[in-house]
Amino acid sequence: MSHKFRFAVVLSGCGVFDGSEIHEATLVLLAIDRLECTYQCFAPDMPQFHVINHLTGQEMSERRNVLVESARIARGHIKDLRAYAVADYDGLIFPGGFGAAKNLSTVAFDGETCKINVEVERVIKHTILARKPIGALCISPTLIAKVLGTVDVTIGQDQRFSVLVEKMGAHHRKTNHGEVCTDYEAKVVTSPCYMLESTISQIANGAENVVKTMIELSSTEGEGTHERT
Amino acid sequence: MSHKFRFAVVLSGCGVFDGSEIHEATLVLLAIDRLECTYQCFAPDMPQFHVINHLTGQEMSERRNVLVESARIARGHIKDLRAYAVADYDGLIFPGGFGAAKNLSTVAFDGETCKINVEVERVIKHTILARKPIGALCISPTLIAKVLGTVDVTIGQDQRFSVLVEKMGAHHRKTNHGEVCTDYEAKVVTSPCYMLESTISQIANGAENVVKTMIELSSTEGEGTHERT
Repeated sequence: MSHKFRFAVVLSGCGVFDGSEIHEATLVLLAIDRLECTYQCFAPDMPQFHVINHLTGQEMSERRNVLVESARIARGHIKDLRAYAVADYDGLIFPGGFGAAKNLSTVAFDGETCKINVEVERVIKHTILARKPIGALCISPTLIAKVLGTVDVTIGQDQRFSVLVEKMGAHHRKTNHGEVCTDYEAKVVTSPCYMLESTISQIANGAENVVKTMIELSSTEGEGTHERT
Repeated sequence: MSHKFRFAVVLSGCGVFDGSEIHEATLVLLAIDRLECTYQCFAPDMPQFHVINHLTGQEMSERRNVLVESARIARGHIKDLRAYAVADYDGLIFPGGFGAAKNLSTVAFDGETCKINVEVERVIKHTILARKPIGALCISPTLIAKVLGTVDVTIGQDQRFSVLVEKMGAHHRKTNHGEVCTDYEAKVVTSPCYMLESTISQIANGAENVVKTMIELSSTEGEGTHERT
């Protein structure tokens, strides 16, 4: 590749219980920048499923928008996910947080029969068809499993979610702190992050390992032609 | 010190334009954890001055609470600033973001004649009197300048804010990316972070340098007895 690796980062709000997990999102951006790559943040322009008071864990009566709240993590530099064109980026990455399971999909409520946001499904399919790598942290690998079916992913060691992604047709691989699960054929890289009880340093390691592996995968172009959609 | 260094981290909301700058806050926590220290997040239980749509920069009509929004960065593990007791911590650190200038103080509106939140003033004074180090990033050094008067701080290279802290009685020192200004007598450590146009890696460096310097200062106890309050 003659240019810097260009990451598209898909956010799902701002806060672990109803949006993107803030440490995971921030540390993905840090890893990308430290590895001398570039990033553009995206999020769908849609209402959040709900708003959770992160102090009490209780639902609040207000309404918030996923794109507007994600802009907090991106310091305003963010685009509507509809603007994502696969030709403009070299890889796509999803930090975790319940927003992936409540806003980007309905997996928190519907399990393996969940619906995936139409734009999220589109960007995953376009990226896979273009043979470019996809990364997913924490609970976000459920999105990839639901869209692709046959793919190797990790959710860490959680029994319920490993069964769930297997029901979606995926193969679950157990991992520990900072470890990645790489599906070399699909070019999908996943890491458990806060699906395990973790320190913030362990999250930084996981984010960095996913980003590094995605960059390495991009230099293995041309291998495998299995159509997945 | 026979125990791990215990940091108290004071947040001011969640988002650069109306709360804590998310990257600075997250990267302070990362630096603390990587240096094998511990942290407890705090924020005042009070309404935010206002809510800014981080996508458009416009004010929104809703109301949010500083402690509740700060809990997003802390993943729920946060305490009301009133619970801060100086004996329980070895150092106090303020990430930046406009929340420091709009919620923790009125410096965004009133400049050098600003008011400081009563709890913020208390925790700064108690920490200084106990001869424990205080760190402040980005715009937060204005809080320390206003409370202490005579202290060396940096806001980076911003002309308006360097004049402002000098009017508060402080001495401003120009700094560049990742550099810290250390007042060895007051044990105050500051770094410009996003007061300069920065990459997220530069923010990580600044946060780590502040945290490291605070730990080093804590081993110089007993030097200087100048009363500052």
